[in-house]
Parts: sequence; structure tokens; C-alpha cells
Amino acid sequence: LKEAIVLFGHGSREAQWARPFQQLAETLSRKTATTVRLAYLELMSPSLAEAIATLVNEGVTAIRVVPVFLGVGGHTRHDLPKLVEVARARHGGVQITLDAPIGEQASVIEAIAAAIAKKG
Amino acid sequence: LKEAIVLFGHGSREAQWARPFQQLAETLSRKTATTVRLAYLELMSPSLAEAIATLVNEGVTAIRVVPVFLGVGGHTRHDLPKLVEVARARHGGVQITLDAPIGEQASVIEAIAAAIAKKG
Repeated sequence: LKEAIVLFGHGSREAQWARPFQQLAETLSRKTATTVRLAYLELMSPSLAEAIATLVNEGVTAIRVVPVFLGVGGHTRHDLPKLVEVARARHGGVQITLDAPIGEQASVIEAIAAAIAKKG
Repeated sequence: LKEAIVLFGHGSREAQWARPFQQLAETLSRKTATTVRLAYLELMSPSLAEAIATLVNEGVTAIRVVPVFLGVGGHTRHDLPKLVEVARARHGGVQITLDAPIGEQASVIEAIAAAIAKKG
């Protein structure tokens, strides 16, 4: 398996909005040997479909999608699973997994709380 | 000084959206002796003004506002600093500080990246 992680954020009209996501991708890249890419739901590119197609072209065969959303709503409940289904149907031989949104991962909430507590 | 932390999130029409923020408040409460409260920019209550007024009524004299926003945009650049200024003007004797949004705090980005890397 050649693996990759796609950090999937909402997107915004404001270019600066994405800076923390770019920072997260860079930081994560330093922590793992796995390829790390960004993708966005709307207003920014690449889309999830584009990011996955690029990775598949590069020979990646296992893609882990990590929704970088704190709040839990329609995007994370409905839009993201559908996008992942479409990508799976398009790239039959590729294993595409979808993590819980980071806001629903206890370890992430714990880590954010620890960072806030430490600074206080 | 009697201190409190206010975790300030965007808010949503969907009640479930706030669950990770409630989880964060509970987790942070366990890590610190400081009072921890939630407040929202829109669509949910309490507002920042309401949360701060309640804390001041309870005798709190130092409030640290932590914007729980990952993306960086108009809300974090403009809306939040203005809301904090209004609160400071209204509660003269109370020290109100505003953290950088968590998306701009290196320690938080580091912690999120570590949690994602560990799970992978």
C-alpha cells in the first residue's frame, strides 16, 4: 500500500482562512512518513475529488480522509460521507477511509484542552 | 483575582453542532481549577456579552476569552476583538483578555497533528 492522508476543511472566500490548515498539514507531514494533502468542501481548491484523483495518479492506493471540522453538522454528517462514496466508486482499486471529524475525536478534544490549560 | 475561561465558538442552527464544544469545556474543566464557560457568536446562546455578564455577577474579576475557531477570517480578525472591547467598556473593573484563535496557536496545531498522526 502506498498511503496518503487528506486533511479536509470547509474552505472560505478569504485566502488567509486556510493558513491554520496549511500549518496543520506541514506539522503533520513532519510527524509522519505518509503523504499529506489538503482539500476543501467549497470556495477553495482542490476539492476532495481533485485531491484524491491527483493522489491516485501518483500511485497512492490507500487514502485516509480526516475532516478538520470542530462543529458537527450537515457537512460532516451528510456531505462528506457522500463525497467519499463518490470517490470510492470512481477509484475502485483504492482503499478510501473516512475518519470521524476531529471535533468528535476524544484524543483531539483532549489535546486542544491540554494546550489551552497549559497556556492559562 | 477570581478567574474564568470563556470558550467562544461560532454557533449553528443545529443543536448537535455544539457537542464538541461542550466536550471541550468539560475536558478543560477537569484540567483546571478555573471556571470554564461556553459562549457563541451567533445562533446559539449565551452570547459573549451574556456569558461575561453572568461571570461578573458571580464575582469573577479576570476573564480569558479563547476563540475556538480553526479558520482565520473576519470573525476572528474583526468581530471578536470588537465584542471584547464592548465587554471591557461595560465591565470596567474586570480584566478581560483575548487569546489568539486556537487555529493560530502553534501548540494547538501541534496537538491536533499529534493526535491525527497517532491514530494513523
